[in-house]
Amino acid sequence: MSWTHHGGRLADARAAFGDTGAEWLDLSTGINPHPWPGVSGLAIDWARLPDEGELRTLETTAAAYFGVDRDYVAALPGTEIGLRLLGTVLPGPARHLAPTYRTHAEMFAGSVAIDTLSVASEGMVIVANPNNPDGRFRSAHNLLAAHDRLSARDGWLVVDEAFADAGTDAPTSIAAHVADDARLIVFRSFGKFFGLAGVRLGFMIAPRGVIARVRALLGAWPVSAAAIAIGTAAYRDADWIMTMRAQLARDAADLDAMLLRRGLVPVGACPLFRLIDVPDAGATFAQLARHAILTRPFDYDPRWLRLGLPGSAAALERLERALADG
Amino acid sequence: MSWTHHGGRLADARAAFGDTGAEWLDLSTGINPHPWPGVSGLAIDWARLPDEGELRTLETTAAAYFGVDRDYVAALPGTEIGLRLLGTVLPGPARHLAPTYRTHAEMFAGSVAIDTLSVASEGMVIVANPNNPDGRFRSAHNLLAAHDRLSARDGWLVVDEAFADAGTDAPTSIAAHVADDARLIVFRSFGKFFGLAGVRLGFMIAPRGVIARVRALLGAWPVSAAAIAIGTAAYRDADWIMTMRAQLARDAADLDAMLLRRGLVPVGACPLFRLIDVPDAGATFAQLARHAILTRPFDYDPRWLRLGLPGSAAALERLERALADG
Repeated sequence: MSWTHHGGRLADARAAFGDTGAEWLDLSTGINPHPWPGVSGLAIDWARLPDEGELRTLETTAAAYFGVDRDYVAALPGTEIGLRLLGTVLPGPARHLAPTYRTHAEMFAGSVAIDTLSVASEGMVIVANPNNPDGRFRSAHNLLAAHDRLSARDGWLVVDEAFADAGTDAPTSIAAHVADDARLIVFRSFGKFFGLAGVRLGFMIAPRGVIARVRALLGAWPVSAAAIAIGTAAYRDADWIMTMRAQLARDAADLDAMLLRRGLVPVGACPLFRLIDVPDAGATFAQLARHAILTRPFDYDPRWLRLGLPGSAAALERLERALADG
Repeated sequence: MSWTHHGGRLADARAAFGDTGAEWLDLSTGINPHPWPGVSGLAIDWARLPDEGELRTLETTAAAYFGVDRDYVAALPGTEIGLRLLGTVLPGPARHLAPTYRTHAEMFAGSVAIDTLSVASEGMVIVANPNNPDGRFRSAHNLLAAHDRLSARDGWLVVDEAFADAGTDAPTSIAAHVADDARLIVFRSFGKFFGLAGVRLGFMIAPRGVIARVRALLGAWPVSAAAIAIGTAAYRDADWIMTMRAQLARDAADLDAMLLRRGLVPVGACPLFRLIDVPDAGATFAQLARHAILTRPFDYDPRWLRLGLPGSAAALERLERALADG
């Protein structure tokens, strides 16, 4: 499997580039390098079936954080699975805004890539906001205009807000517009902003009819006891969330400053990753891998390389030295 | 929601029957009351995406335990989700052997209940072996005869072996008969025998074409980092597995002896639960609940009550006293 398929393949990287003794720095994903620190303090009941009341509490807590009614929220064992399930619940002609996640192209059979929302006028349309890998942010105004066009012809707008938590500005989520008479579905990811991708937790925000169909596919125990315990506590931790948003903005500014010193122009509106444009992304990927730094190239653009946040001043310096050591 | 929907609803039971101060004894599920003890010794990496190499190792380890080729095995975030997904992958006229799990009736749209395998000659047929709640065990001979009939008319036999691990006899699983030219799919559950239902882990054993379609629906991270770490270590723990099989057989014999003392005839071939037949199961359910013991009634038979293993001599005595205190 190529490095352009998806990020996070550290074991494969060790095997391919040798183990230099240096600890690998994984910048191949957009996962927050500062995980929410409360996991070790939680008692997780692995023995019993996940409690349905506690699952409802998780969904209620997450709904409050998203600013939506809890009836519109369903917990998922990761947005990856949720997106793919939605493709079976709402079949139909589909379009995905490209370039984007591989999952968006695969979730609806026969989906066609489009590069601008303005051509989307019918069927299912899936868009990531902010987008990955280019970090492009689309305004609520533009998204709602697309929704209205699609809705008028019985289509649906699906917005993947996997990276929406990290922004420091005014609310950037469109989730509050979900309603029973809207044809809008929003996905939120837990693991990226909270730095806990191993938990596998995500949420679908959708009209109640769609929620009911996805719940019927998942059954009574959609997520693990750990996901319920960790997710509920983390979404309640308003202080950590506020502090982390500010820290990620500072981290992204530090990364940008370093990249500019190296003559690279960082692209994107999401603090958790930056896209750079280089003459030969494959060569830069290999150069960094020889320094035990894993990044993310893309098969559809040989000049693009995505970098996650290094997570510390030392890691940032290490990245800078590796970039300089052409 | 009624108590007959499914087991494990301890929080609801506390609310409905009052908190007497006694710790509730949950006998409403068939989950092993002696959980595999190694969880606290495992380092679970919650921060990173679950590693795909480690996922393959989990599947390889589980396949060796099941006695099948690893190419036929896919990890699932619980068999509940896996069964429901299969209903979207292999649609068609379906039958389920009843009485059984609610999920079996729901997983294929329009599924028809049948009460004997011998009438199954076409379409999808799902059967639990041993069955729940009556613990009925069907021989491999009978299952394979059904498979041959179905297969000859392009049907499929699906066998849910959620409770197949607890037997002490010769291999009771039909999984080794799965092959690319068979039309046989087997589900295995992790949480029931290992007593860790909160983990959400199960497996589908199926021809590679079906495995590929289910993998495409689940994506690259079907289960959590915890499920990978715990499942891999537990399936490797051959000593614990062998010791536990013997212990569960003793526990079930002790439960049977007590029930017979109380004039109740326990039914079923699975050590993890027993079904009893009483004049008014609702009344017996309520009587036990007033003693803070949760059991499992069934809407389709007002005389049936299912009891999980109490898990200790003290809990068994408590159950006996509560049964006596009519």
